[in-house]
Amino acid sequence: MFDHVAIVGATGAVGQEFLRVIERRAFPYKKLTLLASARSAGKTVTFRGESLTIQELKEDSFQGVDLALFSAGGSITKHFAPIAVRAGTVVVDNSSAYRMDPETPLVIPEINPEDAKSHRGIIANPNCSTIIMLMACYPIHRLSPIKSIVVSTYQAASGAGAAAMEELRVQAREFLEGRSIETLTKQAFPFPIAFNAFSHNSSMDPETGYNQEETKMIKETHKILHDDRIEIAPTCIRIGTFRAHAESIHLELQGAVELEDVRRALSEFPGVKLIDDRANNRFPMPLEASDRDDVFVGRLRHTHGQKGGRTLDLFCCGDQILKGAALNAVQIAELL
Amino acid sequence: MFDHVAIVGATGAVGQEFLRVIERRAFPYKKLTLLASARSAGKTVTFRGESLTIQELKEDSFQGVDLALFSAGGSITKHFAPIAVRAGTVVVDNSSAYRMDPETPLVIPEINPEDAKSHRGIIANPNCSTIIMLMACYPIHRLSPIKSIVVSTYQAASGAGAAAMEELRVQAREFLEGRSIETLTKQAFPFPIAFNAFSHNSSMDPETGYNQEETKMIKETHKILHDDRIEIAPTCIRIGTFRAHAESIHLELQGAVELEDVRRALSEFPGVKLIDDRANNRFPMPLEASDRDDVFVGRLRHTHGQKGGRTLDLFCCGDQILKGAALNAVQIAELL
Repeated sequence: MFDHVAIVGATGAVGQEFLRVIERRAFPYKKLTLLASARSAGKTVTFRGESLTIQELKEDSFQGVDLALFSAGGSITKHFAPIAVRAGTVVVDNSSAYRMDPETPLVIPEINPEDAKSHRGIIANPNCSTIIMLMACYPIHRLSPIKSIVVSTYQAASGAGAAAMEELRVQAREFLEGRSIETLTKQAFPFPIAFNAFSHNSSMDPETGYNQEETKMIKETHKILHDDRIEIAPTCIRIGTFRAHAESIHLELQGAVELEDVRRALSEFPGVKLIDDRANNRFPMPLEASDRDDVFVGRLRHTHGQKGGRTLDLFCCGDQILKGAALNAVQIAELL
Repeated sequence: MFDHVAIVGATGAVGQEFLRVIERRAFPYKKLTLLASARSAGKTVTFRGESLTIQELKEDSFQGVDLALFSAGGSITKHFAPIAVRAGTVVVDNSSAYRMDPETPLVIPEINPEDAKSHRGIIANPNCSTIIMLMACYPIHRLSPIKSIVVSTYQAASGAGAAAMEELRVQAREFLEGRSIETLTKQAFPFPIAFNAFSHNSSMDPETGYNQEETKMIKETHKILHDDRIEIAPTCIRIGTFRAHAESIHLELQGAVELEDVRRALSEFPGVKLIDDRANNRFPMPLEASDRDDVFVGRLRHTHGQKGGRTLDLFCCGDQILKGAALNAVQIAELL
């Protein structure tokens, strides 16, 4: 039970979802403080029938706060998370600022909850694409360790925030009204997202040709699974969906597995829903995974139609704002 | 030079594109006949300033026709293509009816034009996903033969015809007006296509878990490249784009290649446009590849950031109706 919980970045897409998740899961606390930039300070939010005023995030904001859920930019987080820790606050951080810090645990509660125990004030929430991939892969990894992953993502606009979701909506309207592609409104993304797909808009290493999103999927997987030898080849692509990411995953395992065992492992794993109905062509879809806690997994098959063997293919979807961000962070807090 | 050209399925999305391609490329012929089902017969189409009346496809439709471009359903094609051949017509068929027939060449003119010579009346046009994948991969295959491919597709609505493109438009409007997902208009596809992604809606082998689109990509690649040993693991997914497919491709080659050599090979290959600007994050996008003859290729990199080696990743896009169907078929006719 926490006495005083603060949400940093309370007005963002993830910050707003923190509130809904806290309410829905009856997350226990006595006092809740909503913090955001000066621009949002003074706005009010109705929560559990109460009107809460958003306060400006300042250096003295964390006095008496025992848990802070952060969803802010990297530089804000780098500045304020250590201040919060010095004030005695435990920080669960949704940004990438501390994910690869050796002293900071990086946790998916269904996968490596024990890592959370060794925290020194900050626990990092993994990248959304990493969480969704590992929720689908970890039950299989327990049957036979993963040797390599080739993954292509179908990422939703929500990963770039509420403004990006609105941009998808605005652009789609403009496109349907017949506006030319060149004149579509573009602010959140450098390229049109409506009725399009493009390579993830994170910055790219000019030497390797990998973008940051892809590098996160590689490094975070190594850290969470405690195995740097897993070879991961990600291609991160955004498509015109609103809030659930999808991923097409090709797995090579160290040993052979039976499909029935994989199905059972996925069905029994908390936070995973197996949707794998070949007869009716029913498999995971982003629209259905939206607003859902579970990561949906299906299209499960042995590669090349083999019966048995070490290689598998699958398709999964998960809500980027929920399990990809706010839900996973609240679950981390629940571990504490 | 053909004396008399017929288009079978002239009112469909591909049939209409046949007309535009023929006009744009100044394809030489003396007489043009448009054929379609009884339902469309009598409609008129203006082409090169002339009004052409669509005639009903009948058993005597091919008298005097020396070239027929077919884009009809499988059963119509199976019935009428042999009739056309008996009448002395050369058939270029866009359906899957004859693609895997050992006596029928399956041709991408930039890749295996010599195969067209051995035809016995019918030349088959490959599946759109196969054409787009191989246009991106074949220039690399010539540098070092491909050992295996893992490919995930991002397929446009157009693959299911003009009605499916209209369904995407209608559903997007309905969604933006706030209609619930359950009440969206669904006729062309079994699942919502607007702001969604779903496993390709072709029928699935209940034993292997592969759908027909994926099986086509495997078998057609083996036939076109004359190499059954290439291992192909496709996952075919539809997304809410209109007419250009995208594909994320992971290649394992038999020998190491330099990225500069791959770039040069792609740049010099007819029908391929290399869009691979890491500094500006400019890569192939379906919206830009729409209405374009070239297949766009980019995101070219060695897997895992290696310098050199045998594994490569790339992302490509191509117009499904043009190079994926009508353009490739007209190019086949131009070979004759």
